Amino acid sequence: MHEKLRTPMIIVNFKTYLEATGRKAVDLAKKAEKVSHETNVSVGVAPQFADIAAVAEAVAIPVLAQHVDPIRSGGYTGHVLAESVKEAGAVGTLINHSERQLKFSDIDQIINIMHENGLTSVVCANNPRISAAVATLKPDIIAIEPPELIGTGIPVSKAQPEVITGTIDLVRKINSDVIILCGAGISHGEDVAAALKLGTQGVLVASGIVKAKDPYAVLREFADATKQ
Amino acid sequence: MHEKLRTPMIIVNFKTYLEATGRKAVDLAKKAEKVSHETNVSVGVAPQFADIAAVAEAVAIPVLAQHVDPIRSGGYTGHVLAESVKEAGAVGTLINHSERQLKFSDIDQIINIMHENGLTSVVCANNPRISAAVATLKPDIIAIEPPELIGTGIPVSKAQPEVITGTIDLVRKINSDVIILCGAGISHGEDVAAALKLGTQGVLVASGIVKAKDPYAVLREFADATKQ
Amino acid sequence: MHEKLRTPMIIVNFKTYLEATGRKAVDLAKKAEKVSHETNVSVGVAPQFADIAAVAEAVAIPVLAQHVDPIRSGGYTGHVLAESVKEAGAVGTLINHSERQLKFSDIDQIINIMHENGLTSVVCANNPRISAAVATLKPDIIAIEPPELIGTGIPVSKAQPEVITGTIDLVRKINSDVIILCGAGISHGEDVAAALKLGTQGVLVASGIVKAKDPYAVLREFADATKQ
Amino acid sequence: MHEKLRTPMIIVNFKTYLEATGRKAVDLAKKAEKVSHETNVSVGVAPQFADIAAVAEAVAIPVLAQHVDPIRSGGYTGHVLAESVKEAGAVGTLINHSERQLKFSDIDQIINIMHENGLTSVVCANNPRISAAVATLKPDIIAIEPPELIGTGIPVSKAQPEVITGTIDLVRKINSDVIILCGAGISHGEDVAAALKLGTQGVLVASGIVKAKDPYAVLREFADATKQ
Repeated sequence: MHEKLRTPMIIVNFKTYLEATGRKAVDLAKKAEKVSHETNVSVGVAPQFADIAAVAEAVAIPVLAQHVDPIRSGGYTGHVLAESVKEAGAVGTLINHSERQLKFSDIDQIINIMHENGLTSVVCANNPRISAAVATLKPDIIAIEPPELIGTGIPVSKAQPEVITGTIDLVRKINSDVIILCGAGISHGEDVAAALKLGTQGVLVASGIVKAKDPYAVLREFADATKQ
Repeated sequence: MHEKLRTPMIIVNFKTYLEATGRKAVDLAKKAEKVSHETNVSVGVAPQFADIAAVAEAVAIPVLAQHVDPIRSGGYTGHVLAESVKEAGAVGTLINHSERQLKFSDIDQIINIMHENGLTSVVCANNPRISAAVATLKPDIIAIEPPELIGTGIPVSKAQPEVITGTIDLVRKINSDVIILCGAGISHGEDVAAALKLGTQGVLVASGIVKAKDPYAVLREFADATKQ
Repeated sequence: MHEKLRTPMIIVNFKTYLEATGRKAVDLAKKAEKVSHETNVSVGVAPQFADIAAVAEAVAIPVLAQHVDPIRSGGYTGHVLAESVKEAGAVGTLINHSERQLKFSDIDQIINIMHENGLTSVVCANNPRISAAVATLKPDIIAIEPPELIGTGIPVSKAQPEVITGTIDLVRKINSDVIILCGAGISHGEDVAAALKLGTQGVLVASGIVKAKDPYAVLREFADATKQ
Repeated sequence: MHEKLRTPMIIVNFKTYLEATGRKAVDLAKKAEKVSHETNVSVGVAPQFADIAAVAEAVAIPVLAQHVDPIRSGGYTGHVLAESVKEAGAVGTLINHSERQLKFSDIDQIINIMHENGLTSVVCANNPRISAAVATLKPDIIAIEPPELIGTGIPVSKAQPEVITGTIDLVRKINSDVIILCGAGISHGEDVAAALKLGTQGVLVASGIVKAKDPYAVLREFADATKQ
């Protein structure tokens, strides 16, 4: 059985980086699992669709899809069915990442489908207003990521702390249960610590780990920082 | 090593049918392999992304993705990278299926990416004019499927033979190498035989096999019909 | 100067019906103006982009665009700029109609652009949950339309009253100012009266007026019904 | 009656530039008409949808839409109906501009709709391969525009002459009738002359005219250059 995500959490989005494709996806997931088990901090990984099965077989930490389509089974060639990623071993999915934005009604439908399948929904949002709107749809997790900081190495938790606190304020008026993460530019342990101090319950990271010279070391630094 | 597609061929599109998801995708692929090995007819299977690895591990027949995105590696969360499906075991992909239609320039780019990766491109087209346009882009295979017949059980090879012959005429003026398949409504061996007699080199099928009570028996009938 | 929308209101969406294209769009708008001036009920019209100027010149009632793109001026060939429809005479726009659905972040951006240009934003939503999500973005008007009833002649206000009351309940917890309309299947004055009794402040209609044998008579019936 | 496009031709795409919106669109169109009548060179203008009617009323030169949707009349809120832009005064439309790219099958359908309505189809293409593919669909005009040069002021006719000659070679093998234009970075009369010498029958321009300090002077230079 795969572990469940718990707070504080670190979710590593593998995107379509070659450094996190195929066997390298499995290797990176094993490093994430090592950090998680050493530190007892929850670390989830989101590999590409075709890598979910191999990753989920190799590690016990939570595996997420990067996207699921708002479809039921049937004639949807080339789409991503929730049941398919679930059977491959995913325990949830990212939804509406700024690199894969969705229609309003599709986000609503995907959250419902996730819920019906016992899967965790992690909805990404660009700004506090959109985070609040997403909160009304009752996903399990919201991840706020200012798109202009993604991949820059400029951490949202330091460059735009008001985005995070603004998000938390707006979201909490609507939904007291949803877990709130932040992402974009998170590169150092101190960025993670800053994010948690601002009131988030974890981080969503990608290039900061995937493109790091030593992903294990950086992820370990991140996990340790959640305890500060 | 996986076998290569060769003519005459039958490609089975698993779509997002639950009957062809997860373990059932592997089971169906094994039946396809059995038919292929018994009859020496080339049979390819196109499972969902998350099932490619398990299917490719279980069978030696050609495995195709149902879609690939026009992207290079990088920050493309939730997209499908050619290198990813290749490493999972796919030898090619469907492109522009009527349920996953693409922009003109994206089809062009995906064909290029397939070529660079040594993968087979199977571009779907709705009508003879579009088939001819696709032919100029030099994919390996064109599959003509009138969308109004998909899933109906009314075989294109009998209901609209002029669509198939018209396609072949137009395409051959432009491209003498591309393999031409047809699909939509193919349900019986005689539909397959009719398709080949009209000049195609195989068929693209989905519900006719996936939703059949006995997929093995129907696929065997299809394979035998290619020899008539 | 064009009149402003005020409650109770009737907005007539001309869609791309030939009965409401070109000169016929102007004719229909004049009938709407006649009803509005006779009854003193606010009636807005939403013609196609190319008809906005002629309609706005012909009538004094509020003219809306059917869509605006989330763009600033620049290199956006084939897109719809807020400033363009404003200069043509529109006082606002429909946003996210179920026939023209948008990404989450685009709705947010269009509402902002509308606000900056002093234009009215009428955001359409499919269900109560989405209406509540939209309410957090602070548009001027929300129009709830169950897509399965659009164009059916089965009035939402009678067939699904709980959708309307559910919407009002959820929206009012978040936003006490936004005007709430409903639409889909509104065909008779009693449907309009029912919608207002359920707590909406007006209706969004299309085929019920555009395709009516006598659009003036039906619209007059609608306007009179707002006074019951 | 509006004039028809004839070779050699210059088509000015107004995009969504504020310098070519509303009254400024009419002003710019009048300058284009002045140049056309002074030089007897065919100049077409493509304003935004909401400006088509006013522009078409003000000038006798050909007016084009920037986009039309692949729809018939009906329930298509926020879409662009061919009949609507035609009645507003357009004699044709741009299709598949790199800023408004379309699905393969949609381009095919729009060309058909244009033909049925007696309207001119100007299909944009990114590269020679796509131009050849488009040529099979038998539009009236193909405009080749390498997207990386659009808006740069680096003229395609000088920076990438092989793109133009390659396009002409491939297209002429398939379609001997279609008019071939080129665009992207055209800023000076010599760029226009170079384009014609390479074998095109005109140019598609945007910022080179719209953003010029003296659009009349630059357009006059372009028109004169077609006679070199």
